[in-house]
Amino acid sequence: MGNRTKKFNLLHKEAKSNARLGKLETVHGVIQTPAFMPVGTQGTVKAISPQELKDSGAEIILSNAYHLFLRPGLEVIRKIGGLHKFMSWPGPILTDSGGYQVFSLALLRKVNDEGVEFQSHIDGFKHFLTPESVIEMQEVFGSDIMMPLDECVHYPAAKDYAKVAMERTFEWARRARKKKKDNEQLLFGITQGATYEDLRKESIKRTIELDFDGFSVGGVSVGEPDALIKEIIDIACAHLPQDKPRYLMGVGTPPDIIAAIEKGVDMFDCVIPTRYGRNGTAFTSEGKLTVRNAAFSLDPAPLDKKCACYACQNFSRSYIRHLFNTEEILGLRLVSLHNIYFYLELMRKVREAIRDDKFTEFKKEFLKNYGQNEN
Amino acid sequence: MGNRTKKFNLLHKEAKSNARLGKLETVHGVIQTPAFMPVGTQGTVKAISPQELKDSGAEIILSNAYHLFLRPGLEVIRKIGGLHKFMSWPGPILTDSGGYQVFSLALLRKVNDEGVEFQSHIDGFKHFLTPESVIEMQEVFGSDIMMPLDECVHYPAAKDYAKVAMERTFEWARRARKKKKDNEQLLFGITQGATYEDLRKESIKRTIELDFDGFSVGGVSVGEPDALIKEIIDIACAHLPQDKPRYLMGVGTPPDIIAAIEKGVDMFDCVIPTRYGRNGTAFTSEGKLTVRNAAFSLDPAPLDKKCACYACQNFSRSYIRHLFNTEEILGLRLVSLHNIYFYLELMRKVREAIRDDKFTEFKKEFLKNYGQNEN
Repeated sequence: MGNRTKKFNLLHKEAKSNARLGKLETVHGVIQTPAFMPVGTQGTVKAISPQELKDSGAEIILSNAYHLFLRPGLEVIRKIGGLHKFMSWPGPILTDSGGYQVFSLALLRKVNDEGVEFQSHIDGFKHFLTPESVIEMQEVFGSDIMMPLDECVHYPAAKDYAKVAMERTFEWARRARKKKKDNEQLLFGITQGATYEDLRKESIKRTIELDFDGFSVGGVSVGEPDALIKEIIDIACAHLPQDKPRYLMGVGTPPDIIAAIEKGVDMFDCVIPTRYGRNGTAFTSEGKLTVRNAAFSLDPAPLDKKCACYACQNFSRSYIRHLFNTEEILGLRLVSLHNIYFYLELMRKVREAIRDDKFTEFKKEFLKNYGQNEN
Repeated sequence: MGNRTKKFNLLHKEAKSNARLGKLETVHGVIQTPAFMPVGTQGTVKAISPQELKDSGAEIILSNAYHLFLRPGLEVIRKIGGLHKFMSWPGPILTDSGGYQVFSLALLRKVNDEGVEFQSHIDGFKHFLTPESVIEMQEVFGSDIMMPLDECVHYPAAKDYAKVAMERTFEWARRARKKKKDNEQLLFGITQGATYEDLRKESIKRTIELDFDGFSVGGVSVGEPDALIKEIIDIACAHLPQDKPRYLMGVGTPPDIIAAIEKGVDMFDCVIPTRYGRNGTAFTSEGKLTVRNAAFSLDPAPLDKKCACYACQNFSRSYIRHLFNTEEILGLRLVSLHNIYFYLELMRKVREAIRDDKFTEFKKEFLKNYGQNEN
């Protein structure tokens, strides 16, 4: 990129798998990989404060250009001095470009090579985004890692449409790359190609020629079967360069993430921990726990006996169940916080296991306790 | 009471008013008075964690026997080891008896001298409370300060009914007093009498003969005009003993609280800071601020420039407005937290002013900034 300093250091490859340990440098701090990015779509990780994110060990969070563009709008974020200051999050921020949202949330979109016109899902107003305007937007935010506008197709997608979208995504990536200023912000490329091996390979081949700071695997977690996601990850990890971070967008559950790390993925984001948290489902070392179940009404144990988070150090399942029963906000706060901590703690353990060349053993042990077969 | 140790120390009476500085000792800690008790009706101060309450300087919180009796029920709280452990709040807890709730929330109540039968406002199940069962309940909770079952009348109330309710409240207080074990829990008496001076006086005279650990002024903030509340407070402060804490139930706004402190009230509880917080109204040194207003969309200032709370130290009005606009939970968390901090900080300043015999000056300055006439 414009800035020639090496931003990503691959520190170690695990002996018995493709799992990688790395370090990604940004202006707002260093991210250890494999990394999980809590999702703050609208400029806040739902129900969690920045202080709680920091205390949980979050090193980077994700926010979304599409949502922030609509609300509060660029003018507000510019006036307050950028997204970090607006949210009061001093660490690194990756902003998704909004491509996925335009193709999933927005109404009446019209795509052409120039860009995409859509109606806001909030008020129906029309907007037009181009690869260039999306970069400008993320420059206003001051995102540490920017993502280019892409065209995301849903599953199943006809091959001819998937090909058009892949090629348009590439062309938009080229324009985004060109638009980007020579500053400290990083820009990743997004690879597409739906579930077609040849399209995926072609997308990767052409995108890496543009020399981005990292590469994401886009267009996954859009309804396709697990086996297909695994194939897409295999293709990506086989063809993406070793010396750049690899980001699997929107995935997933703890077993999904562990499976992808084993194949060589470095970065993840997912709404699952907070979305499940708001519904009262906790991720624990022994699998998912639905704390609202009547079975927990007299249970003095914490959500997860092995967890050191604020929720588990202070509150019983019985109490948290009561909070959900009575629709008290502290309930969804505690389970969301626990889930974020659980995901981040899982990544800490994963990194330690990779460092010690014990990832395979770690995976086996984790999945055994989690109550799932290793596959 | 059973325990003869002096629990309340009146440390100072302000020179130019009836404002009092005191200290109330409980098993779970000392409460400096005048004190504000954040309200945790269902075993949680809405949207706020116990750690945040502690960090805000809360020395005591209030919870409600009526609500806890219905959900989660006594069996759960007993099993988990009492209310402090259930909520993970290590400091003092005052539990209201539920009298007020039975007479405002519950359905189809039938009162007789024995007690009160009512239908739960949640599921319609019938329950019967007696002065004795309400004490037993609060013994299960382990409340530091218990309140006896009382009959609360609404405004306006016919005098003959107000008299019956006052006399029944007294009789129930006598039975509660008798039922209470000889332990470290404190028991306050509730005085009633609606808006009738002679009934108020009689209620106070008879209730203080029962030698409670403190006395509350009940049946206020039930719809009567401000002037009548002030009269009721005057009567109470003139006739309640100097050496016991005085608790004005359910009051109120910052100016209401300051006015009552000036007359000699020591303790307060009110849902206003959290209820207003959830609706986006902040209490500030310059009066109420509706952060959702469009006027704040570009405002980089904190809710209150003079405030040291987490919300004001980290977030702009612009950001908090955005959180309310997008219905993000962090928005109501931050304004609730700020309001609780504001109330508790106000009490700290009030106590300092009383200590320095400068309460009148403090009041004048506070109300001037708050934008209200001194009255």
